[in-house]
Amino acid sequence: MKALQYRQIGVEPEVVEIETPEPGPGQVRIRVTAAGACHSDSFIMGLTEEQYIYGLPLTLGHEGVGVVDKLGAGVTGLELGESVAVYGPQGCGRCYHCAQGEENYCERAAELGIAPPGLGAPGSMAEFMLVPDARHLLPIGDLDPVANVALTDAGLTPYHAIKQSLPKLVPGSTAVVIGAGGLGHVAIQLLRALTPAMVVALDVSVDKLKLATEVGAHHVFPSDAESAERVKELTGGKGATAVFDFVANQPTLDAGHAMISVEGDQVLVGVGAGTLPSGVLAGPFDSTVRAPYWGSRSELFEVYELARAGLVHVETEVFSLDEAPEAYRRLHDGTLRGRAVVVP
Amino acid sequence: MKALQYRQIGVEPEVVEIETPEPGPGQVRIRVTAAGACHSDSFIMGLTEEQYIYGLPLTLGHEGVGVVDKLGAGVTGLELGESVAVYGPQGCGRCYHCAQGEENYCERAAELGIAPPGLGAPGSMAEFMLVPDARHLLPIGDLDPVANVALTDAGLTPYHAIKQSLPKLVPGSTAVVIGAGGLGHVAIQLLRALTPAMVVALDVSVDKLKLATEVGAHHVFPSDAESAERVKELTGGKGATAVFDFVANQPTLDAGHAMISVEGDQVLVGVGAGTLPSGVLAGPFDSTVRAPYWGSRSELFEVYELARAGLVHVETEVFSLDEAPEAYRRLHDGTLRGRAVVVP
Amino acid sequence: MKALQYRQIGVEPEVVEIETPEPGPGQVRIRVTAAGACHSDSFIMGLTEEQYIYGLPLTLGHEGVGVVDKLGAGVTGLELGESVAVYGPQGCGRCYHCAQGEENYCERAAELGIAPPGLGAPGSMAEFMLVPDARHLLPIGDLDPVANVALTDAGLTPYHAIKQSLPKLVPGSTAVVIGAGGLGHVAIQLLRALTPAMVVALDVSVDKLKLATEVGAHHVFPSDAESAERVKELTGGKGATAVFDFVANQPTLDAGHAMISVEGDQVLVGVGAGTLPSGVLAGPFDSTVRAPYWGSRSELFEVYELARAGLVHVETEVFSLDEAPEAYRRLHDGTLRGRAVVVP
Amino acid sequence: MKALQYRQIGVEPEVVEIETPEPGPGQVRIRVTAAGACHSDSFIMGLTEEQYIYGLPLTLGHEGVGVVDKLGAGVTGLELGESVAVYGPQGCGRCYHCAQGEENYCERAAELGIAPPGLGAPGSMAEFMLVPDARHLLPIGDLDPVANVALTDAGLTPYHAIKQSLPKLVPGSTAVVIGAGGLGHVAIQLLRALTPAMVVALDVSVDKLKLATEVGAHHVFPSDAESAERVKELTGGKGATAVFDFVANQPTLDAGHAMISVEGDQVLVGVGAGTLPSGVLAGPFDSTVRAPYWGSRSELFEVYELARAGLVHVETEVFSLDEAPEAYRRLHDGTLRGRAVVVP
Repeated sequence: MKALQYRQIGVEPEVVEIETPEPGPGQVRIRVTAAGACHSDSFIMGLTEEQYIYGLPLTLGHEGVGVVDKLGAGVTGLELGESVAVYGPQGCGRCYHCAQGEENYCERAAELGIAPPGLGAPGSMAEFMLVPDARHLLPIGDLDPVANVALTDAGLTPYHAIKQSLPKLVPGSTAVVIGAGGLGHVAIQLLRALTPAMVVALDVSVDKLKLATEVGAHHVFPSDAESAERVKELTGGKGATAVFDFVANQPTLDAGHAMISVEGDQVLVGVGAGTLPSGVLAGPFDSTVRAPYWGSRSELFEVYELARAGLVHVETEVFSLDEAPEAYRRLHDGTLRGRAVVVP
Repeated sequence: MKALQYRQIGVEPEVVEIETPEPGPGQVRIRVTAAGACHSDSFIMGLTEEQYIYGLPLTLGHEGVGVVDKLGAGVTGLELGESVAVYGPQGCGRCYHCAQGEENYCERAAELGIAPPGLGAPGSMAEFMLVPDARHLLPIGDLDPVANVALTDAGLTPYHAIKQSLPKLVPGSTAVVIGAGGLGHVAIQLLRALTPAMVVALDVSVDKLKLATEVGAHHVFPSDAESAERVKELTGGKGATAVFDFVANQPTLDAGHAMISVEGDQVLVGVGAGTLPSGVLAGPFDSTVRAPYWGSRSELFEVYELARAGLVHVETEVFSLDEAPEAYRRLHDGTLRGRAVVVP
Repeated sequence: MKALQYRQIGVEPEVVEIETPEPGPGQVRIRVTAAGACHSDSFIMGLTEEQYIYGLPLTLGHEGVGVVDKLGAGVTGLELGESVAVYGPQGCGRCYHCAQGEENYCERAAELGIAPPGLGAPGSMAEFMLVPDARHLLPIGDLDPVANVALTDAGLTPYHAIKQSLPKLVPGSTAVVIGAGGLGHVAIQLLRALTPAMVVALDVSVDKLKLATEVGAHHVFPSDAESAERVKELTGGKGATAVFDFVANQPTLDAGHAMISVEGDQVLVGVGAGTLPSGVLAGPFDSTVRAPYWGSRSELFEVYELARAGLVHVETEVFSLDEAPEAYRRLHDGTLRGRAVVVP
Repeated sequence: MKALQYRQIGVEPEVVEIETPEPGPGQVRIRVTAAGACHSDSFIMGLTEEQYIYGLPLTLGHEGVGVVDKLGAGVTGLELGESVAVYGPQGCGRCYHCAQGEENYCERAAELGIAPPGLGAPGSMAEFMLVPDARHLLPIGDLDPVANVALTDAGLTPYHAIKQSLPKLVPGSTAVVIGAGGLGHVAIQLLRALTPAMVVALDVSVDKLKLATEVGAHHVFPSDAESAERVKELTGGKGATAVFDFVANQPTLDAGHAMISVEGDQVLVGVGAGTLPSGVLAGPFDSTVRAPYWGSRSELFEVYELARAGLVHVETEVFSLDEAPEAYRRLHDGTLRGRAVVVP
């Protein structure tokens, strides 16, 4: 079969012919109908040889939808031909976190050498893909694979980030989204669907602010040194009840810290890090900072229910498998509108 | 191997010789080191031919601890010889509830013909036992199997019932346990370990009230027509913040209703049913009634952590497999102190 | 001043001239700009002499908006002329429930003889009204008093009922509203604003089902013996995640019980009562039944934030104080569309 | 009457004779039976003239218990002679936060010039004290004022900090207390009373570690550069589920960050600040940092319920009002065991 592989540190991924995998006991093979390209793919392909830990060659793609193609021994409860989305942050399935479906926080993944598809294990940018267990497959019925494949990460990650802040996002609250790109423009829609909060989007790109408005942001502002002041003004001085930061570099961390309210949540989702002042004298009382990662199995169900109800829509540009390297170029250059989807 | 089977409606279970099962792909065989006898076993053996739906012959036992004996194809992450407790309320593993580890509320179990061991599937009252998936096995390390096997139901069921009421069981609250038997005497300990609530136990048996006091109840009273009045008095008229009813017949339902407080929880755990007045004119504002069933996978972890910390202890009487029919007789007659455990 | 008073058991209320009250220390006098008429007013005027406990003569009206007119000694933090909504379910302000703003569940109200305006204390159907403490007044800025007065009960009561069920009303869930009248048509809007749930309305009146659709119900059905079956069908057999019953007589209780899902909430808001089967064998596992009453102080803030955001709108018909008796006649006959508002 | 006043920046407080205050409308005068001395008093007396914002002269004391002595006009529901604890973090009583009893997070306190007793308003280190509203008084019945006065801050502050983390402190979790002094030794007891967590205490003082053990810590360690490593080891590598840091300087912040678990809570209670790495690459997934302040009105009820149940005990040393300056000297020098209480 054809697959898009990252084969050499620092060299663009390429489409190669590899053997079609056979499912072992408990495993399931799917025929991929859509695969999403993500910033974190670019991120790992930007690492040096010392930093890179994902193995080579690596079939890319941690967002995947397909149809059930072949069942390994002992697998039941799945129909051949069923359309399914792949739950990516796979864990051991047995530890305390996995026992709640929080495989994204598996306690034993490292020890057991378990990695998500496309981030260690063979990914979805191929004609066929193995998943280690039927529990990682979510039936999606007649939802369009291309339009909805990105929900497995670009939907699930903001959903998980937002879900924990829902009890605070009461009427009268304000939610700020920093970065209205692939994940951020979904976050805006999730906030509108799940909460009565006023939604504010910040971005450095005028186009992305336009997209933010189209998908439901009540207010949009340039992301700059005045962002915090503008949010404070807009909220009568109270500040943001929650900030979802899909950039997470030092300037956006500082802006988030400056605009957060008493008991507010500053949630860092972007793949970045910085430092923040902490302590009772350093910011509003009981405001929290946290950095979540991907999402749980039941949250993926909830994301697809939103899609079914027409409450979330991912902007996508479609590429064939042969064009996939181009998709990553466009992603890297920031010239995509929304998300790149590869159709093998 | 030897197994205790219920073979004919209305006839006592008997010890028979059957074939030792072989684990298929994904399955695990354990050598049973302890199996618990439970009221619900007696309950189903008391059903008529029309009511009985669990299949015959039925190897009894839904509480089980054993050592990993043989792995089916594809099973990883388990060591032969490891001591494990069996999670009983097994579901499909893939639906929305199962995706959170709430296999006790599996949406597809009936449709797929999945039943708990000893309640449809072959149970733990045998020398060996198959479990359908490694996720149903919880490592318990060097905890004594005999002392702790009953936690898989007699611990997990009250734990699940109590866990949902924890936010209400603040300092100054009152928790009432009706029925201080196999599950109730564990509930008392759980309430003491998990909450600062005042714990009150009610039972018709003086011996069980004595046991209730020994395991930590602050107050004990006979379970009778005056129970509600006594609880009201003890709480300055407020009533019980939560009532955990392990009997759940009409008189205990009525007593619970009469003693519950505003915003209190009346939780019906015993295998029974009745009717209750409902509506804003029928009882304290915002008091709730609910009837939980068994518990989730992560809750079973939490129960065994309590055992590890020495915070919960099940009173047990031990029987050999050959004596198992006698254990059920004693259970039926109500002459057991705590729980009957069978050691194959 | 003029006031609408209920003066004699069984006799229609009448408009009378009474003395304008003076605010004592800590009290505030408002000039009423809008007062709402409610079914519970009709309910108490339908009671017999033995049942009636609200005192005579009684100035009616527990929904009120006005402008701050005169401050009693020691009152600070309020401006004369400020537009304010009256929090109705007033309590002692000091007990454990009141300390959280849950004055609707005050522990000492009965003992201290505290009653809500219009339900024991003089109400809002008058030119002026005293409130016992400034904490019972919520500034509403330039919101239209007539359009929004009903939110103090017809908004707050369903809001409180729904708020407790929000964690269950995830994507894919279903909320059913039984009775799409004064409170029910607000409940539908609240559910749409606060949750991604599918909203189903049931009513015996075709006009009210039409209103339900207009305010956002996804599906409407006649409220009859087939209601439960229809909801089951619509949800693929799962049933309703939450039922908000604004009728709460035996037939609607039975229907709610028959349609509720595992872990669902049956919430009885209407002034009624009945009986329900209870216990693990009597209904879906862990479904709850509760009957809330009115709402808390902070919830009233949240309701008015929804109004400010344009997310909730109460259908109203307007009457002068002299026409107020007619408003109650129309209310009693069920010929109002939405809520009757009296403007003194 | 006699009062302990801070009268000049940088000069020790002194006992002076001032006029006994008269309660205005809505106010209550208490005769002080016990007043607690706190590190934050020392903290503000250590500020420079530029930093100091609390007014001079300032009667000290934000922890107070007394008996109701005189009621201002309009005050009801209180008995003369009743023993009451003073809720310190007083707010406006009317804003959204105050409407939930979270007066510690009052939105209008600064604007309206409202300050806690002893931290702007006249405090409890005097023979008599005014409280602005009866809602700030909690009846404590026959609890010993001297033994329990410190609960108003040294109990309430750790209680509020811990309460938000309770859902995470399940069986198998680990709670770390950094600093086993006035607040920390209470925190240890609260954790034992409210949770089944393993409790670990860290301090630089051997005496305080001894106290920590006496009040219930399961493990104690020196607070140093190896603390994090020790906690990691003790928890099989998982780290602390919650860290309650009553020191909150840069070294303890760093230690807390290094020992926190995935989804753990790092809670900064001490009056300090520093900086922390933040972001998905900077620490365990979904761990949170927050800095709470004091507590809510209903939480103070809950703290006193713990005292009533014998579940919390504050170590105290007693001083007369004339000896109060000495109490502050001892506090400053760190030679107190537990808390200093002044009895006027």
